[in-house]
Amino acid sequence: MSENIYEDPPGEEKRSSESEKSNEDFDLAAIYVSDAQYNRNICVDTSPQAVRLYLLYNHWVLKVLLYVFILVDLCLAVFEDPAVVPLPLWATMLVELLCLFVFTFRLTHYAKVIPREKFWKDPKNICIIVILMLTLLDMIIYGALKASDQYGVRWSRVLRPLLLVNVTEGRQLRRAFRSIRNALPEISYVFLLFIFSILIFSLMALKLMGKRGLKTLDGSPYFTNYFEIVFELYVLVTTANSPDVMMPAYNSSFFFAIFFIFYILVNTYIFMSVFLAVVYNNYKKYLKEEIRQLVRVKRQKMVRAFSVLQEVSEQGGVPTVNHAHWSRLVRRVQPRMSNAHRELLWSVLDHQNQGQVQFVQVADLLNIEVITLKSRPHPFHSWFPALYSSTPCLLLCRLVRHRAFVILYDIIILVNAVFIGLDEDNPLISYSEWMFLVLYLLEILLKLSVFEPRAFFSRHSFWNWFDTIIVICALIATIINSAITSSGGYTSRQILDIIFILRVLRLIRVVDSIKRFRTIINTLIRIGPAILTFGQLILVIYYIFAIVGMELFKDKVKFFEADSSDPEKSFCGNPQLKGTSFAHLNYCKNNFNSIVSSFILLVELTVVNQWSWSWAWNSTYYECFLYLEQLQVPASKKYRNFLFIKELMTCFH
Amino acid sequence: MSENIYEDPPGEEKRSSESEKSNEDFDLAAIYVSDAQYNRNICVDTSPQAVRLYLLYNHWVLKVLLYVFILVDLCLAVFEDPAVVPLPLWATMLVELLCLFVFTFRLTHYAKVIPREKFWKDPKNICIIVILMLTLLDMIIYGALKASDQYGVRWSRVLRPLLLVNVTEGRQLRRAFRSIRNALPEISYVFLLFIFSILIFSLMALKLMGKRGLKTLDGSPYFTNYFEIVFELYVLVTTANSPDVMMPAYNSSFFFAIFFIFYILVNTYIFMSVFLAVVYNNYKKYLKEEIRQLVRVKRQKMVRAFSVLQEVSEQGGVPTVNHAHWSRLVRRVQPRMSNAHRELLWSVLDHQNQGQVQFVQVADLLNIEVITLKSRPHPFHSWFPALYSSTPCLLLCRLVRHRAFVILYDIIILVNAVFIGLDEDNPLISYSEWMFLVLYLLEILLKLSVFEPRAFFSRHSFWNWFDTIIVICALIATIINSAITSSGGYTSRQILDIIFILRVLRLIRVVDSIKRFRTIINTLIRIGPAILTFGQLILVIYYIFAIVGMELFKDKVKFFEADSSDPEKSFCGNPQLKGTSFAHLNYCKNNFNSIVSSFILLVELTVVNQWSWSWAWNSTYYECFLYLEQLQVPASKKYRNFLFIKELMTCFH
Repeated sequence: MSENIYEDPPGEEKRSSESEKSNEDFDLAAIYVSDAQYNRNICVDTSPQAVRLYLLYNHWVLKVLLYVFILVDLCLAVFEDPAVVPLPLWATMLVELLCLFVFTFRLTHYAKVIPREKFWKDPKNICIIVILMLTLLDMIIYGALKASDQYGVRWSRVLRPLLLVNVTEGRQLRRAFRSIRNALPEISYVFLLFIFSILIFSLMALKLMGKRGLKTLDGSPYFTNYFEIVFELYVLVTTANSPDVMMPAYNSSFFFAIFFIFYILVNTYIFMSVFLAVVYNNYKKYLKEEIRQLVRVKRQKMVRAFSVLQEVSEQGGVPTVNHAHWSRLVRRVQPRMSNAHRELLWSVLDHQNQGQVQFVQVADLLNIEVITLKSRPHPFHSWFPALYSSTPCLLLCRLVRHRAFVILYDIIILVNAVFIGLDEDNPLISYSEWMFLVLYLLEILLKLSVFEPRAFFSRHSFWNWFDTIIVICALIATIINSAITSSGGYTSRQILDIIFILRVLRLIRVVDSIKRFRTIINTLIRIGPAILTFGQLILVIYYIFAIVGMELFKDKVKFFEADSSDPEKSFCGNPQLKGTSFAHLNYCKNNFNSIVSSFILLVELTVVNQWSWSWAWNSTYYECFLYLEQLQVPASKKYRNFLFIKELMTCFH
Repeated sequence: MSENIYEDPPGEEKRSSESEKSNEDFDLAAIYVSDAQYNRNICVDTSPQAVRLYLLYNHWVLKVLLYVFILVDLCLAVFEDPAVVPLPLWATMLVELLCLFVFTFRLTHYAKVIPREKFWKDPKNICIIVILMLTLLDMIIYGALKASDQYGVRWSRVLRPLLLVNVTEGRQLRRAFRSIRNALPEISYVFLLFIFSILIFSLMALKLMGKRGLKTLDGSPYFTNYFEIVFELYVLVTTANSPDVMMPAYNSSFFFAIFFIFYILVNTYIFMSVFLAVVYNNYKKYLKEEIRQLVRVKRQKMVRAFSVLQEVSEQGGVPTVNHAHWSRLVRRVQPRMSNAHRELLWSVLDHQNQGQVQFVQVADLLNIEVITLKSRPHPFHSWFPALYSSTPCLLLCRLVRHRAFVILYDIIILVNAVFIGLDEDNPLISYSEWMFLVLYLLEILLKLSVFEPRAFFSRHSFWNWFDTIIVICALIATIINSAITSSGGYTSRQILDIIFILRVLRLIRVVDSIKRFRTIINTLIRIGPAILTFGQLILVIYYIFAIVGMELFKDKVKFFEADSSDPEKSFCGNPQLKGTSFAHLNYCKNNFNSIVSSFILLVELTVVNQWSWSWAWNSTYYECFLYLEQLQVPASKKYRNFLFIKELMTCFH
């Protein structure tokens, strides 16, 4: 892409001098504007055919379809060996082939849109091609091996989440990865210093405590092996084994407690804070650079769009765009925008009322959300004018709009919460649920009869939607449940669960009544998209680790149902786990035997190391080996911290 | 204090019109400048006697003495019942009386310095008076009770740490407390929402899992009591009981794992982030307000100092201060400043060389640390000129200054680290220690013979000081140890411990060789003062909790030495603890039986709940930024860059 942003692309100068703009010109300008609007950085071919293909390429249906197929591809792990729901090999293979076909089609489409030399220079396209080829190769090899009944590994599954990063729409994700990669060198210095600090402290611990003949709780020698000390002190940084690791030394002398407290102060608090500060600063620095580049590209796109539609008046002077052309362009970019909204934007641009503008800011203007508030009369007003203007009806209106109505329903919700907490086997309680349902339905109907329905269910009335959906679902589920109970005489556990969840969710509505709470919730909803990008990032990393973990550790640890009488149940089916606290604490289900349990296990490992979200995924691989070690090393002293407070509380009663 | 910062205090206008300034004028101006320099906000009486008393009040010896007595007062808890080192009641009482006397004396001194009505309006003075009275009252009551052999509680000990906050020098601490207090209302809303979220999730957990008949590891019913669920889920926010709390449900169905993961996502990650953000923002807001006020007061003080010394030239015009007066003032404020440094400051102020200035920025200029590098010849050069200029000596100089010399010693340190890690009972290893000591001594001597000693031991050469002190201490300790060993035939454990610590500390020196590491360490040293303020804050809170805990829980849990054969040992001397995991995990020493064990216990509790403290750490870092900001605000445009760059240079180079 050219560095000089005002340079016009070749071949457009000619067209822009003509007064009458063709349909293709508008297509081209619309592409530039919508690229700028959605921060797309794609260098499209300017031929009319490519432009039309590009408009199709950006159609939302195709994008959604692509993500659906990526999701299907990722979800295949549920059905492949080791499976949650086993399917025959040919079925998963067929679905995967279909996915590969879709991805290839999408890539071919993309190749037709941008110039050939640009396509082959872009690493993300090369990446997708390599992924597709390797996957195909792996499928053939695996199929052949299985056909001849030999052992095979589906290694190409590790590559699947990389598609999420490399598709054209994964811009945000690529940006996040790039920022992380750029920040790594700076982070590594702090990390090295942190490791150095642990090593020095471990050496000191070895020299101070190794020769005292101290014993741990299970009678083994305490702090005599350097590498064991390093491991214990590393775990102490996460505070997972505090205070267990310190107790033998503390029992011998309280000076050792000072050593451990100093260690935690330096490593857990000071180092982790510095670490976080460095990560945050560097990430911010590189993200800022990314955004700066984004803005440059955006400007460039707008200048190009402008150069396509510009007109030079007969007296010479600055080139401008007139109102008719502008309207046509905006209609093409956002067909569903109302006329009033479009005219509002024009008046913002043409604030001197000259009938013509220079529009570098249009893309940002289009992104501004304009809430159109139409004060429409209530339909009842036109249907039953006499009834609607009667005194009782007006009184009802005033009642529903009154603050006391909100407070009344908050109280009802609180009473409901108490009833939910009580035992539902009591018939009185279960009948009361019907009463609450009726009360909630009444509330919605009352509100609907007072407020204009289209305003009530507008796109921004999150809580109205929430309320109505929850109440109606609860009504349906309760009716189904009663029907099943009265006909068959038994209750379905699943439907009951759904009813319980819906009942409890209804209580959340209270939050909306308190202004401060509403502000906090709205803020959370606002940062949703950022969390979504982060979620994808986590998904990519978890998926890769889960696949690798499954291939390495599958069936090493087995889970037996509670009613199983298998003798192997007491040691999770692995003789190495006999007598370990891993087996004793009933952790058998924490294994890599399926994609679901792998994900849950990885989340558990992340949670224990909560001290740094940003670092968690760097250390996850290490955690896998830590997990492997846990299978062999007896007596892990983790996860016991809080017992001690509980005991303290019971003892002081 | 007046809001109009340019208003002159009454009674000074007269004096400032005289051309010859008296000694008292300089005293007064010096007070204003040094008050501004150290951000003191004290409204001093302007009478010459009060000014002289105030100069004495701010003398560093008196301040150090005050803090020593506060420390003694706080440390009394070590000797009072329940004591670590028991002392008779009369001894601690006498020391406490002495402390009270010192505090009273200091307060009286303060009362003489500031106007009477200001003294009685200031809540911190009232606070100190009340603390002193209550302490005296409590001592009398307790003494009387003890004399008549009755039970008494020394309740006034809780008030002791409040002295730290209320003494004149506790400005930073008061500022921190005030910011926290002001931020509390905003924080409480997020906290309430957080509590609400836990209650709702607990209700859902009760309804979903309460009726499934699940059992925990020890066979008790799982998730059947609402309040137990709330407690378990609260603990889960700190991730301390993850994944134990989830295992019974997860073993029954993996859908429940999703419930727990969602809970952790919402409460541990999202809510804690929002909580942090709100705390951080509010703390920042209020701290900014505090700093703004500080800057206003600072300006006011400087204007007053100026008005004392200003001269109006005969032609009228702006009042100024001439060079002689300025020099005399600076000499009085900072007697140890070198002439060159003072002249440098003057030339910065009087950049147009007019011989007279208006000096609102002096206070900030005085705070700038100017490192004076004097290139003095080495003393050897003057003592033995012939030897020092000889070829082998010059070669040695080049060798020692070479990069390879540093690398050589880094390698020696690493080899030393390996030797330390090996078993010191091996005679070869223990003799090698002598070799390393000699090598380190040789390094210091070589460096001393090449670099100028006063530059080598300058105030900013942290690592040279560190090195020399460690090596000399290690030498002395090793010699003492050998003497003891060869004479008595036994080794003293304490001396060996000290030797080990010194040996390991020596290894830290490696950090200095790598530039990036040095930068990180220097940054940590720079934020030291901020951490110190925070440390005092923690101390105040811990002390109060420790004293209350000791009175409530002392001797409830007893610790028995490992070789004790007391039957009560297995349950920490408390029958209620029989068979609990508290006793089983050997936590008996985690008790409130003395101030030391109370502090260690409180630290342990803090570490497990580390999330609640992380916000406080963040705010500490913020103070460092504010410190920079504070320097920026008062400076006029011309000096702003100068100050900022200078500060940046000293802070982050």
